[in-house]
Amino acid sequence: MGIQEDIKPRMRWWGWGVDGFDKPIKPAAVKILTDVCGMDIDANTPPPNVEDVKINPSALDADDIAALKEAVGDEFFKDDHYTRVMHTYGRSYPDLLRLRLGVLEIAPDAIVYPGNEDQVAKVIKVCEEREIAIIPFGGGTSVAGGVEAVRGGFKKAISLSTLRFNKIKEINKDAMTVTVEPGVFGPDLEEELGKHGVTVGHFPQSFEFSTVGGWVSCRSSGQESSGYGRIDKNVIGLRVVTPKGVLDLRDMPSSAAGPDPREFFLGSEGVLGIITEATIQIHHKPDVMVFDSYFFNSFEEGIEVFRELKQKDQLPHLARLSNEKETYFGIEQLGGGKLGEVLTKYLNFRGIDTPCMAVLGFGGGHVEARAEREAFNLKMIGKNCVRLGPTAGNIWVKERFTSPYLRDVMMTKNIAVDTLETCTTWDNALNLHKHIIHDMEAAGNAHGTPLFLFCHVSHTYQSGCSLYYTYFMNEKLGEEMQQWSDVKDAATMAMENHGGTCTHHHGVGQDHAPGLRVENGDLWTDFLRAAKKFYDPKGVLNPAKLQDGPVSLRARYEDDDPLVG
Amino acid sequence: MGIQEDIKPRMRWWGWGVDGFDKPIKPAAVKILTDVCGMDIDANTPPPNVEDVKINPSALDADDIAALKEAVGDEFFKDDHYTRVMHTYGRSYPDLLRLRLGVLEIAPDAIVYPGNEDQVAKVIKVCEEREIAIIPFGGGTSVAGGVEAVRGGFKKAISLSTLRFNKIKEINKDAMTVTVEPGVFGPDLEEELGKHGVTVGHFPQSFEFSTVGGWVSCRSSGQESSGYGRIDKNVIGLRVVTPKGVLDLRDMPSSAAGPDPREFFLGSEGVLGIITEATIQIHHKPDVMVFDSYFFNSFEEGIEVFRELKQKDQLPHLARLSNEKETYFGIEQLGGGKLGEVLTKYLNFRGIDTPCMAVLGFGGGHVEARAEREAFNLKMIGKNCVRLGPTAGNIWVKERFTSPYLRDVMMTKNIAVDTLETCTTWDNALNLHKHIIHDMEAAGNAHGTPLFLFCHVSHTYQSGCSLYYTYFMNEKLGEEMQQWSDVKDAATMAMENHGGTCTHHHGVGQDHAPGLRVENGDLWTDFLRAAKKFYDPKGVLNPAKLQDGPVSLRARYEDDDPLVG
Repeated sequence: MGIQEDIKPRMRWWGWGVDGFDKPIKPAAVKILTDVCGMDIDANTPPPNVEDVKINPSALDADDIAALKEAVGDEFFKDDHYTRVMHTYGRSYPDLLRLRLGVLEIAPDAIVYPGNEDQVAKVIKVCEEREIAIIPFGGGTSVAGGVEAVRGGFKKAISLSTLRFNKIKEINKDAMTVTVEPGVFGPDLEEELGKHGVTVGHFPQSFEFSTVGGWVSCRSSGQESSGYGRIDKNVIGLRVVTPKGVLDLRDMPSSAAGPDPREFFLGSEGVLGIITEATIQIHHKPDVMVFDSYFFNSFEEGIEVFRELKQKDQLPHLARLSNEKETYFGIEQLGGGKLGEVLTKYLNFRGIDTPCMAVLGFGGGHVEARAEREAFNLKMIGKNCVRLGPTAGNIWVKERFTSPYLRDVMMTKNIAVDTLETCTTWDNALNLHKHIIHDMEAAGNAHGTPLFLFCHVSHTYQSGCSLYYTYFMNEKLGEEMQQWSDVKDAATMAMENHGGTCTHHHGVGQDHAPGLRVENGDLWTDFLRAAKKFYDPKGVLNPAKLQDGPVSLRARYEDDDPLVG
Repeated sequence: MGIQEDIKPRMRWWGWGVDGFDKPIKPAAVKILTDVCGMDIDANTPPPNVEDVKINPSALDADDIAALKEAVGDEFFKDDHYTRVMHTYGRSYPDLLRLRLGVLEIAPDAIVYPGNEDQVAKVIKVCEEREIAIIPFGGGTSVAGGVEAVRGGFKKAISLSTLRFNKIKEINKDAMTVTVEPGVFGPDLEEELGKHGVTVGHFPQSFEFSTVGGWVSCRSSGQESSGYGRIDKNVIGLRVVTPKGVLDLRDMPSSAAGPDPREFFLGSEGVLGIITEATIQIHHKPDVMVFDSYFFNSFEEGIEVFRELKQKDQLPHLARLSNEKETYFGIEQLGGGKLGEVLTKYLNFRGIDTPCMAVLGFGGGHVEARAEREAFNLKMIGKNCVRLGPTAGNIWVKERFTSPYLRDVMMTKNIAVDTLETCTTWDNALNLHKHIIHDMEAAGNAHGTPLFLFCHVSHTYQSGCSLYYTYFMNEKLGEEMQQWSDVKDAATMAMENHGGTCTHHHGVGQDHAPGLRVENGDLWTDFLRAAKKFYDPKGVLNPAKLQDGPVSLRARYEDDDPLVG
């Protein structure tokens, strides 16, 4: 690819991924969404044409533009309509909603594509001098408002795309690390590593369209992170260009030399500096992943088994547990409903009346993976569950990155879809879960739009697990944002008030800023502000995010002056 | 025990541990130390009597004393000679040397023992108002100058003992965590946990005399941390009393809510606040640990095998690899030398001419542990090494905490003993090792006192390993400190210049401050200063440590005004 090809947006401007993957909603899902949520099957609200999208005029003057072009080169400064639209939002539900409404009031004034650290430093200097906010932008898949061009008191804002930082600099087979630049996309990284029989093993659902820089700066976690470890557990070296200078953190497996500086930049979401290089642990790539599934009679029983096995180090690489409703939703759609009926009858016959499905994945050599699967089955002896083989896992792995496409289809039918996630200790998991479900459903009901809401556990730790929620809700025309923010608020506050975190792996951005404050307290939030002041004294980097994010969702989405944010 | 018993020092004032464990130097060691280092077997420099030790007069005035007594209660303010001597230094070689010289110029003016967070806050307030430095003190086992009562610009200093924070608050068998106060000693914690069949699994060599607070605040690592994980990988909740208020970090297995605040206080060494509670991962306690040993023909070959196995997740819980000289030192002492001779002949016969010993420990049930040991042996097929069974491991486990006692015996014979450690990536391990050995030996030779210096790998990570050095050197009367600091400097600078860390698990304190600056750079060091300014604006907490530590060892130990530090 040429350099101009490399920096072309990979996603369609109005939704997830690329065209051609949208599928109709399955009949069983239509039935559930109609019955529970009141979906109107005839609804049809397609996205507008990009040419018809209205955006704010650029606030940059000729001198700004000249200075920015001077910093990165003419060809790597872009302010055309399409590029500005593409860099306005991330890919959260409210982002998609606003894109579809077709009026963008906070498109960045321009996008710059620096090609090396010097150019990054130059861009920062220009923006400090000319009072322009800089929004770091990689794949743009944030679902927390992390890449949105809010200005935070500035009158001008540009996005700084990392996509020219696209080199895989070194694959070190001795230390089993890869040194990689932030603009490398997941599939490109894995393709190159695959040639060497290794993998980073980092597969967030956004894998196809997200970049290493996003993973590292947002403490991302992937579908196999219970096995390979979250990205923050795998970064051993880092380079960051901050307004105060370059931080160069050598590759280090472990150290007691004070607080770990790597940890402070993991999760800093571009507010302290621009990550320009990371050295990340790689792993031997398994020849195969083979699957199995077990059905428990309740989420509670399944969680208890997951806890016990995890703490004995017996849970495999990949382990997911769906609650009753998520399992029901999945079963209902099997084979057009018929296979689901048979399966349900069989499970009932075996004493599983309210099935909760666990999908397990075993990686390794062809023989070893299968042997591990059978060894795992021995651990399940005496537990109240039914083993049902690899089918569920095979379906899951085929569709592991495709769910986000479904949102676009649903939204055309005026159905809101969102996901959110938390984490807590095992002893608190069910308590927290009950509060989240109760409070989210109450928020939906208050709008007269009941949720279809389900949950799974996808990440396990010795001390606890993640809880990941998906919900559907009928949109009321003109009230969508209020519906969404009430449900989101209910979930976040339930997490904060009952011992969870406001985000297990989506990052903070703007949407989780209210939660962050409750979770870690004012003292820590104020300290993050002091850190920001230290590294970015003029405050140009990703303003009004993380510690400086909105005090509430209402403040964010109902602000009268979106350009100020 | 009564409360006044609880806060009594556990160690003897002049050396490691308690009386009654000192053993004569074994004949084989005498021979080596005489031949290589020029040890004088007739040398005898015992420590002085504590009553004869001279200390600086207390700088506190009557108002200071009244205010501190008001904060903690009369009985928990101490300024008697013995208690002040006990809290002057940690337990590094230069600490022991200075204790033995019997002239202490920086004894803390008093020691306070707050009993709850309010009292900690009150002590801080008093000290801020009255300009008194506060040195947090747990077990006092620091080997990096971390608990030394340097004043950093203040005229007065007190030690704040954490020993009344001695409660194990909750053992949570669901989350498998223990919530514990910082003043709890290793053995007391493990005894209580053992009743529940669980363990923290944290066994630094200082285990008997170090506290949880020290482990957490210094990012400690234990002998079994390759299996259980370093302390920083196991802390999921934390409370810290800072001069700016209390930081209360909920128990959280994992989160993406910005930089992890726990990580910032892990390794903060009391310069930002006083840790008052930590929630730490616990683990099922194995019924037994069984051992095995293998002898490789070189350190290089052993490291290569360790790397390969670690990256395949096949290295057991405990794995240590001694270099040629450490192995030689151990073998020579077996059975008064005779058994060692037989063993050497046997190994030579098997083709191992320059043996490097690996000790492996397998934990679990009685059957499982032995099965794992045999399964491990299968992995060693085809590798150039000789298996020699459990004896070496059984000796190691018996003596795992006793080596520090040996220093006291050696120093009575005018032999300096010190240990130091680093960490690097696998590909750099031998390169770094060669530089460290070369530079340390050159520094010893420059004084005309050759080192007997050896090394082992005791902590492994997927990307690298620790390197742990022990050396012996004849002391030249009056030149000891210069000898030591030249050797130490040589080691630290070799680590910094060749891709290591200045400390893998001993912390920074003062002795590693020069290394810290090189390692993470001025930008990070300056940021730590900004963090200090934020949390401790008056700078009373553990001044002149970590980011504010001495710029060189020479500056530290040759300072004309030790009270200023």
